[in-house]
Amino acid sequence: MTQDELKALVRTVPDFPHAGILFRDVTTLIGHGEGFAVAVTLLAQQAAAIGAEAVAGIEARGFIFGAAVAARLGLPFVPVRKPGKLPVPVLALDYALEYGTGTLEVDPGAVHAGQQVVVIDDLVATGGTALAAVELLRKATARADHALFLIDLPDLGGADRLRGAGVAVQSLMDFPGH
Amino acid sequence: MTQDELKALVRTVPDFPHAGILFRDVTTLIGHGEGFAVAVTLLAQQAAAIGAEAVAGIEARGFIFGAAVAARLGLPFVPVRKPGKLPVPVLALDYALEYGTGTLEVDPGAVHAGQQVVVIDDLVATGGTALAAVELLRKATARADHALFLIDLPDLGGADRLRGAGVAVQSLMDFPGH
Repeated sequence: MTQDELKALVRTVPDFPHAGILFRDVTTLIGHGEGFAVAVTLLAQQAAAIGAEAVAGIEARGFIFGAAVAARLGLPFVPVRKPGKLPVPVLALDYALEYGTGTLEVDPGAVHAGQQVVVIDDLVATGGTALAAVELLRKATARADHALFLIDLPDLGGADRLRGAGVAVQSLMDFPGH
Repeated sequence: MTQDELKALVRTVPDFPHAGILFRDVTTLIGHGEGFAVAVTLLAQQAAAIGAEAVAGIEARGFIFGAAVAARLGLPFVPVRKPGKLPVPVLALDYALEYGTGTLEVDPGAVHAGQQVVVIDDLVATGGTALAAVELLRKATARADHALFLIDLPDLGGADRLRGAGVAVQSLMDFPGH
């Protein structure tokens, strides 16, 4: 499967979640057995090459790619969760969204001091959520120097914002002009 | 890794989400690289043996195991989502929870008529959510005759309830008396 064939599996939905947004939807890619397996293989190769010791996925779509990569490599999977989901005392971090604020939570016992935890999500746009995940993992004493995405929307500047925070960023495809 | 060693990776948290509940928490198992990989391998073997043509995972913890199994087998992954997440017209199903009701949604284009879609989730308790997922997939014209779980709480009757609806149920471990 070529890079172009993989990219063609992403569905573009206009005006979701609101008018003027072109939503890049991975449902169709993960719903293609070969396409999903290829994407996971490519992300796993990147994670292995950077020496990942654990994989963090951001709830909920980041669980799909992050967990598959972790299982492929035999690495721990660290769920970065929405509030109130974890049954233990958590570390939490609030961050700004386009409208209002969000909160992410992690079990501090799920990572170790200095552990190289790579953050995986399906898509980076403005990078706010991924940056919050990185900061939260660092607060939990992990290293979090790498982030992997299936899709980058470069015009929204998220990858650059992450790089500015010392995070190396890779993606499997991008949609310029988004 | 033995079955007992795998089971020992599940953390039990008393009084979550409310008093009197022993919460069986998979965070610690997925946070153990070998344990998570073994669990995914065992679930993938079960899914392959029953001829699964696609894997459905229930948001959000079901994404962790379901997506990893789908990627392992090169099968499509079908996310069964909470309301408002999918960017396309959905099929939806309301179901009863202990307090109030829940709703699950699926992209009807994600499954095909007669396709054997196996439902995977981390845990079956009363079975309400898993049964709703099965009914939703059947409404979308898929076959959904099998459900796989990491953990069964047999005293809560969920597996029996699913069997009563024509769903074959397997789990990797159970906690009787829960």
